[in-house]
Amino acid sequence: MNIDRMNRSQRLVAIMKLLSERPGELLPLSLFTERFGTAKSTISEDLALVKEALEADGSGRLRTLPGAAGGVQYWPLPSREEEQETLLELCRLLSDPGRILPGGFVYMTDLLTHPIWSARIGAIMAARFIDAEPDVVLTVETKGIPLALMVARALGLPMVMARREGRVTEGPSVTLHYISGSSRRIHTMTVGLRALRRGSRVLIVDDFMKAGTTARAMVDVAGEMGASVAGVGIFVTTAQPARKQVDQYVSLLTLEHVDEEERAVHVVPSERPPKE
Amino acid sequence: MNIDRMNRSQRLVAIMKLLSERPGELLPLSLFTERFGTAKSTISEDLALVKEALEADGSGRLRTLPGAAGGVQYWPLPSREEEQETLLELCRLLSDPGRILPGGFVYMTDLLTHPIWSARIGAIMAARFIDAEPDVVLTVETKGIPLALMVARALGLPMVMARREGRVTEGPSVTLHYISGSSRRIHTMTVGLRALRRGSRVLIVDDFMKAGTTARAMVDVAGEMGASVAGVGIFVTTAQPARKQVDQYVSLLTLEHVDEEERAVHVVPSERPPKE
Repeated sequence: MNIDRMNRSQRLVAIMKLLSERPGELLPLSLFTERFGTAKSTISEDLALVKEALEADGSGRLRTLPGAAGGVQYWPLPSREEEQETLLELCRLLSDPGRILPGGFVYMTDLLTHPIWSARIGAIMAARFIDAEPDVVLTVETKGIPLALMVARALGLPMVMARREGRVTEGPSVTLHYISGSSRRIHTMTVGLRALRRGSRVLIVDDFMKAGTTARAMVDVAGEMGASVAGVGIFVTTAQPARKQVDQYVSLLTLEHVDEEERAVHVVPSERPPKE
Repeated sequence: MNIDRMNRSQRLVAIMKLLSERPGELLPLSLFTERFGTAKSTISEDLALVKEALEADGSGRLRTLPGAAGGVQYWPLPSREEEQETLLELCRLLSDPGRILPGGFVYMTDLLTHPIWSARIGAIMAARFIDAEPDVVLTVETKGIPLALMVARALGLPMVMARREGRVTEGPSVTLHYISGSSRRIHTMTVGLRALRRGSRVLIVDDFMKAGTTARAMVDVAGEMGASVAGVGIFVTTAQPARKQVDQYVSLLTLEHVDEEERAVHVVPSERPPKE
């Protein structure tokens, strides 16, 4: 597409729009010079201004790679301040007693499936794992999918959905059985061979973790498929049991306790490990 | 958040970034004046420049609502040209014989679950339905979820996932049984009462439609829950059977035929009804 010559203000808006629509992708400078009909030097100046603006705004990360195979990459990562604000607001929403369900479960599907929230949570999770350099995001159906997709979006990575049973539409697959922590029942998890390649670096994402058997099964299925684990990120983990089936994980929020009798829920931001 | 005084170029970048991160939301002007520490008149001028830039760029829609309850809304809708380009590229990718699965199915999960593609397809679908003014997007697990989430994202709406069976984590639900077109088996669809409110205007989204029984079941379950249908949008529909179980729907691509013997797949952009 060739656009009638824009002025610099218009180009800055159009560049930020393009970067936001294609997070994580390495965009060659030629994409911009062709689209805006300008010289490479002009685009480089524009990108320097965009970078300045992002720094002044305090969030978002822009990286410029020089050379013929180079270009520009943008990630919509929140500032620490935005992250803290979002997590506290989520704790407030999740601590509403109206969310208590039988058995001490907490209703959180509305937040997970609202793209405004899943995008914000996804960007926070992406910021925690970008330096681990994953190349694919893995989750298991169903509730974790919106969050995993938004993590993948912020990082510009593909997402893989493990299924509960094999489907003709997924092609040949690897199937694994595991015992759930709570019900002690045998569960099945299956991942398409076309979806997850050998040698991938997998970021495992899920919405909720109690004992950690589902996350453990995802770690195991990734291993069986010749992939390595770049990290495990969970939106909400329960405080108890303190020991989970996965050793290393990042949790955003901790469900301290639910009291069905007293109609009380207590959700707090998870502590960050000191090394971060 | 109050940011050290930015210059106009920096504000334009930061405004476009904010709009892109919160599509569909009505953002009050006070959000901008507080964030950038500027007068309302300055922000109004900035927004006029953003609007000009979007028009020059040829995609994205910005609406300014005057008055105390007013503000600005942005939708990342593609231009007709971008839409056409994306759909043709998808046809090319889907017509790869390597995608043929037993039974004449076509593997398309990689495209549906890659956020770069699901976001593009979602924005195209959003553009087709924005004027129907839906207030929620409904899909059924599992493969339709990434696309439905991206449609919801482009419109700034919540998404609801119908499930195949009731779950304690979804709370009380409405359950409906239906007979699938292909297998003639009884299927179950269940939607949480907390998720879909009476009086909602529902946009139904799914990735694939053959006979249309699943889409029909979504129309029916919405009706049982006191919601009305604003539209039905499907990514890929099969050319045969020509008559589907839903009368009105928008299809983006048509699967003309799959020949397992000859290893041939033929996918084309669906014809748009003349009234559009």
